[in-house]
Amino acid sequence: MVVVMAPEATQADVDGIVDVVRDAGGEAFVTRGVSRTIVGLVGDVDQFGSLNLRSRPGVLDVVRISVPYKLVSREHHPNRSVVQVGGVPIGPDTMTVIAGPCAVETPEQTLIAARMAKAAGAALLRGGAFKPRTSPYAYQGLGEAGLKILADVREETGLPVVTEVIDPRSVDLVSSYADMLQVGTRNMQNFALLQAVGEARKPVLLKRGFSATIEEWLMAAEYIAQRGNLDIVLCERGIRTFETATRNTLDISAVPVAQRLSHLPVIVDPSHSGGRRDLVLPLTRAAIAVGADGIIVDVHPEPEMALCDGDQALLDSDIRELASVAAHLPPLMGRTLTPPRDVSPRDTSAAPAPVG
Amino acid sequence: MVVVMAPEATQADVDGIVDVVRDAGGEAFVTRGVSRTIVGLVGDVDQFGSLNLRSRPGVLDVVRISVPYKLVSREHHPNRSVVQVGGVPIGPDTMTVIAGPCAVETPEQTLIAARMAKAAGAALLRGGAFKPRTSPYAYQGLGEAGLKILADVREETGLPVVTEVIDPRSVDLVSSYADMLQVGTRNMQNFALLQAVGEARKPVLLKRGFSATIEEWLMAAEYIAQRGNLDIVLCERGIRTFETATRNTLDISAVPVAQRLSHLPVIVDPSHSGGRRDLVLPLTRAAIAVGADGIIVDVHPEPEMALCDGDQALLDSDIRELASVAAHLPPLMGRTLTPPRDVSPRDTSAAPAPVG
Amino acid sequence: MVVVMAPEATQADVDGIVDVVRDAGGEAFVTRGVSRTIVGLVGDVDQFGSLNLRSRPGVLDVVRISVPYKLVSREHHPNRSVVQVGGVPIGPDTMTVIAGPCAVETPEQTLIAARMAKAAGAALLRGGAFKPRTSPYAYQGLGEAGLKILADVREETGLPVVTEVIDPRSVDLVSSYADMLQVGTRNMQNFALLQAVGEARKPVLLKRGFSATIEEWLMAAEYIAQRGNLDIVLCERGIRTFETATRNTLDISAVPVAQRLSHLPVIVDPSHSGGRRDLVLPLTRAAIAVGADGIIVDVHPEPEMALCDGDQALLDSDIRELASVAAHLPPLMGRTLTPPRDVSPRDTSAAPAPVG
Amino acid sequence: MVVVMAPEATQADVDGIVDVVRDAGGEAFVTRGVSRTIVGLVGDVDQFGSLNLRSRPGVLDVVRISVPYKLVSREHHPNRSVVQVGGVPIGPDTMTVIAGPCAVETPEQTLIAARMAKAAGAALLRGGAFKPRTSPYAYQGLGEAGLKILADVREETGLPVVTEVIDPRSVDLVSSYADMLQVGTRNMQNFALLQAVGEARKPVLLKRGFSATIEEWLMAAEYIAQRGNLDIVLCERGIRTFETATRNTLDISAVPVAQRLSHLPVIVDPSHSGGRRDLVLPLTRAAIAVGADGIIVDVHPEPEMALCDGDQALLDSDIRELASVAAHLPPLMGRTLTPPRDVSPRDTSAAPAPVG
Repeated sequence: MVVVMAPEATQADVDGIVDVVRDAGGEAFVTRGVSRTIVGLVGDVDQFGSLNLRSRPGVLDVVRISVPYKLVSREHHPNRSVVQVGGVPIGPDTMTVIAGPCAVETPEQTLIAARMAKAAGAALLRGGAFKPRTSPYAYQGLGEAGLKILADVREETGLPVVTEVIDPRSVDLVSSYADMLQVGTRNMQNFALLQAVGEARKPVLLKRGFSATIEEWLMAAEYIAQRGNLDIVLCERGIRTFETATRNTLDISAVPVAQRLSHLPVIVDPSHSGGRRDLVLPLTRAAIAVGADGIIVDVHPEPEMALCDGDQALLDSDIRELASVAAHLPPLMGRTLTPPRDVSPRDTSAAPAPVG
Repeated sequence: MVVVMAPEATQADVDGIVDVVRDAGGEAFVTRGVSRTIVGLVGDVDQFGSLNLRSRPGVLDVVRISVPYKLVSREHHPNRSVVQVGGVPIGPDTMTVIAGPCAVETPEQTLIAARMAKAAGAALLRGGAFKPRTSPYAYQGLGEAGLKILADVREETGLPVVTEVIDPRSVDLVSSYADMLQVGTRNMQNFALLQAVGEARKPVLLKRGFSATIEEWLMAAEYIAQRGNLDIVLCERGIRTFETATRNTLDISAVPVAQRLSHLPVIVDPSHSGGRRDLVLPLTRAAIAVGADGIIVDVHPEPEMALCDGDQALLDSDIRELASVAAHLPPLMGRTLTPPRDVSPRDTSAAPAPVG
Repeated sequence: MVVVMAPEATQADVDGIVDVVRDAGGEAFVTRGVSRTIVGLVGDVDQFGSLNLRSRPGVLDVVRISVPYKLVSREHHPNRSVVQVGGVPIGPDTMTVIAGPCAVETPEQTLIAARMAKAAGAALLRGGAFKPRTSPYAYQGLGEAGLKILADVREETGLPVVTEVIDPRSVDLVSSYADMLQVGTRNMQNFALLQAVGEARKPVLLKRGFSATIEEWLMAAEYIAQRGNLDIVLCERGIRTFETATRNTLDISAVPVAQRLSHLPVIVDPSHSGGRRDLVLPLTRAAIAVGADGIIVDVHPEPEMALCDGDQALLDSDIRELASVAAHLPPLMGRTLTPPRDVSPRDTSAAPAPVG
Repeated sequence: MVVVMAPEATQADVDGIVDVVRDAGGEAFVTRGVSRTIVGLVGDVDQFGSLNLRSRPGVLDVVRISVPYKLVSREHHPNRSVVQVGGVPIGPDTMTVIAGPCAVETPEQTLIAARMAKAAGAALLRGGAFKPRTSPYAYQGLGEAGLKILADVREETGLPVVTEVIDPRSVDLVSSYADMLQVGTRNMQNFALLQAVGEARKPVLLKRGFSATIEEWLMAAEYIAQRGNLDIVLCERGIRTFETATRNTLDISAVPVAQRLSHLPVIVDPSHSGGRRDLVLPLTRAAIAVGADGIIVDVHPEPEMALCDGDQALLDSDIRELASVAAHLPPLMGRTLTPPRDVSPRDTSAAPAPVG
């Protein structure tokens, strides 16, 4: 941490900083420049944070030098992590596709969407039973009935389930059905929810807040980790900017930046970032090429009937192209597409035809 | 709602839109332009929202014309509302000052801060017992012990209490102590929390999300209103932009814009928007002059010892200037400064000295 | 300037930084922290900028401590400046109103608008003869014919003229008619134009780029100052954010922030920031109350016939209210409204009726 | 264009809109909804723009339906264009790499950088002789001496030259040396410059303003096209957002969006968007994968000695990886890497060794 003194700061002001830092158990080194004096602090940065140094006389600015997160940082854990979701890995050597409907509506719609997902190369099924919606008048999801449908479809297809949790009071309920808990973009700084999923025994998919810096995103992950759950996958899903041509602006650079700062896997949501079906495939290719560890995509058997975000759901006709991209691009990045787990005997719909 | 057809749309595409709208009980009027055909829809807009019109063949864009909120709109309720907080009004004819420490730390600190608040012209006391912090390692507040301190200080000073609630599970607890429930900027789209405070029997101070549009802010208010609680005060507290000279950018225009769209009172937080003590008074003046119905300000007896946001808390020496601004500027706007309720006999510290 | 070393930096890396700084004539002081080593640099910061320290081995980050502008900074010139425009002051003790039509269209329209401006309290006339328009198909202004109209109206009303220059090739031409040269928001980083007005002998009104940081704005002013022209007035006119309810977001905090960093006067444009007539008066009040040194406002005799930005021009009926605000609010800020220069004998239209 | 009437609009207000539109030669169709009346306009939209409909009584909003650009739109020209630069194509079937130093410093540095460029797969050489810099104290380029160096290096290597022009007064000079004129991000709305390059007989590389919407970017291209020059290549180079981890946020979605709206080629600058060397290769891969028609990359023989943007220039060691990406990724996108023109006999440095 560096304290920058104002040009008019007195010697007594500088001495005051040195004293308060030493009283807090740290060390302070003074460097006098031509137009500025700075004081470099050595010691426990978190403790310095509570000294309100910026409020002291003669202080112009306080510049933090080290990162404020620990457990999720690569300094803490230099090798990139692999997170297992119901036996399916997400990590540096693989490309894992998560797909499914935005919202669970009916057993049939969910099962067909899961089969589309599998045909597209997905190893995990997504689908929302609790939907956070901007309008109180919009479809809010089926709740527990939706979770049961997801569990049934998992049984049928073998795909582990990723589903959103929006209330700390329902973390236990959702955990009892899901293989991975999703925290949505609007809840990225819902600290009560972060702490609740931090105490759950399921991996967490943490979407970036649409206006969160990468540092805030990692701090949100730190909240989860601090409660004991380090099975966290980060998901870039577009940020809010001045541009209105797309729903959000996919921050593709966030993938390599977050991977450099944190050991956690980073995946991309090309559906919600663009909000337009015609952008899903280009953004999927960009995500794989930039080095993402996975993607999460909306599919729906009849997008024009979808109760949520139908505008961005892939059609059946897009599925073949997605499957082709998922098969051919990852090897150029030194990755293999994560296959679905062994198909359950009850569902062979997406399995390749036996030879001979 | 207006559906804009793509240049290459066929007659069948246009007919398809007209049919699906009529099947949904609405009416559709087609206007053919030189380069575009548009279809104007008449009927229940919420229902049209679920038709996924954007996904249908030949559709280029769908433009919503009416506002998506109802209960909080001025169309619903043309006269601007007054919200009563423990007997203190916030509304169009008054200027109400809310002040107090960012976080409740000790009984003494809170009591002194409350007396500073009163001296500054405040009629309501703010103070946080549950603090949403970006870092899990930062001070998280005293919890219920803090609520008790606030209740004691209210007893002592007569100032009703505004305090934040961050978890739907603690809404009842906080309601049992507070006169007004604050929903913070990071929770503006925490829909579970909005629904919980919508069911509480206390007025709500709804801070604007730092990246929320004014429309999203009003939709968040609609969530609360839809559960039966219309005692909502909106608070502009700065938005996130590219500018880094201030912590956030106070969107001063949001005050008249929100007042025009909604009947709810709108106040301004000049402390958190700038994040710098030297900006609090200029922004307070700007807020009153633009027409805000109130302001909410951080004060602390010893900012350099504050456990939260000490950099922006007003010092004792600023209090006189704030009191002067609060006394002299509102009359130019046709408003009167809301006085504190009758001072309880136990606290006369801030009362003017008797004459003679 | 502070160089932050990466956690994995070696002693040789640190030594390398120290050496290259000393070779450049500076001094370097090393502070070793628990998780980071930092090197504080003392000497000529501009020279350090060309050392590409961030590119050197072991360097994580380089943090600049001092401000990059000189001539326009308050460190260079602690007292706030007054800029004279055709005999009319803009500075810390006055409130100067600039008003007029967005675009000069006809002699009549310009003269009527100038009289409206005067009635509203203006001491300077604005009006565009060269208009930078987003579309090549929009009205581009009258050019030199417009400048002549402005000069005639100045003759008639006594109001000095502020008008925009958009091309370095026409700086001499515009200077021969105008009292103040305006550099528009889209040209704030048109460095060829900045240098050209820096060589002109007329004061400059420098609008903030709609996406420029305050620091970049001051650097643009430095470009002008560096060519010898220090008669610069800064104008905040709204920045681009995610909010779409207003054309731009007026960054009201930029006024006190820029006044603290620079000695130059700072005024506000409440017309272009909001882009809506109904916001002009509230934002004018906010601008005066926050401490602006002036405002610049669009007026038009018949806004619905305006060739440019008619949506935001004040109507005749708004003029009285503006005059009232301009008369009553500045004294509360310790300022006096700048009166127009002595009225020329040919125009007494706006002069008060003689008493008796 | 659609005019939305306010809820309180009268019949006379609606009739007024219909009349003024008909007087202007257009047609107006009225649709009455439950809570809103809208008027759809048919006819010449540019003419309607000057009617100031938003200023008329009873009008709530005016929504433009058609795009405001013509010559550069795909409606005007459905097939995607190929732009030839000194015999090198940029267009839908190829992937063209442009590389070179940010600034031309010396003949040697430029020649070595050009050879690095060629080794990396480049068919065009970039390099700045006129540098627009935020600070007047930063390196401003060699001017005409730099152009001569570029011309010599072209002679030596066979690579046509792309270089920036920053002043309408030097367009002729730069055109006499360059094969392609670059308009930089800060000049995207420098309309005098756009018109000047619109009259030049050289292709133009138009960088997106770092805060320009895609629509404004296409309007800037329209300025150039309207003066007769349709040889325009668009370049996405990152936009300004709240995120500070990267210099700008590469808007990767802008590539497919702009390609859908306009027939012009769209390339990506992965160097300036991230501002960090370690992001150049990941962003290059993302750009190719998303479907860009080319990339433009900074290379420098000794980045730590660069006079401009050394932090982002690729090192010699990165060049092999870039060459590999440029060779292997485009075929997956159905494109071929554009080879350099026939190598001039004087430079065989980058040519493959003859077999046998």
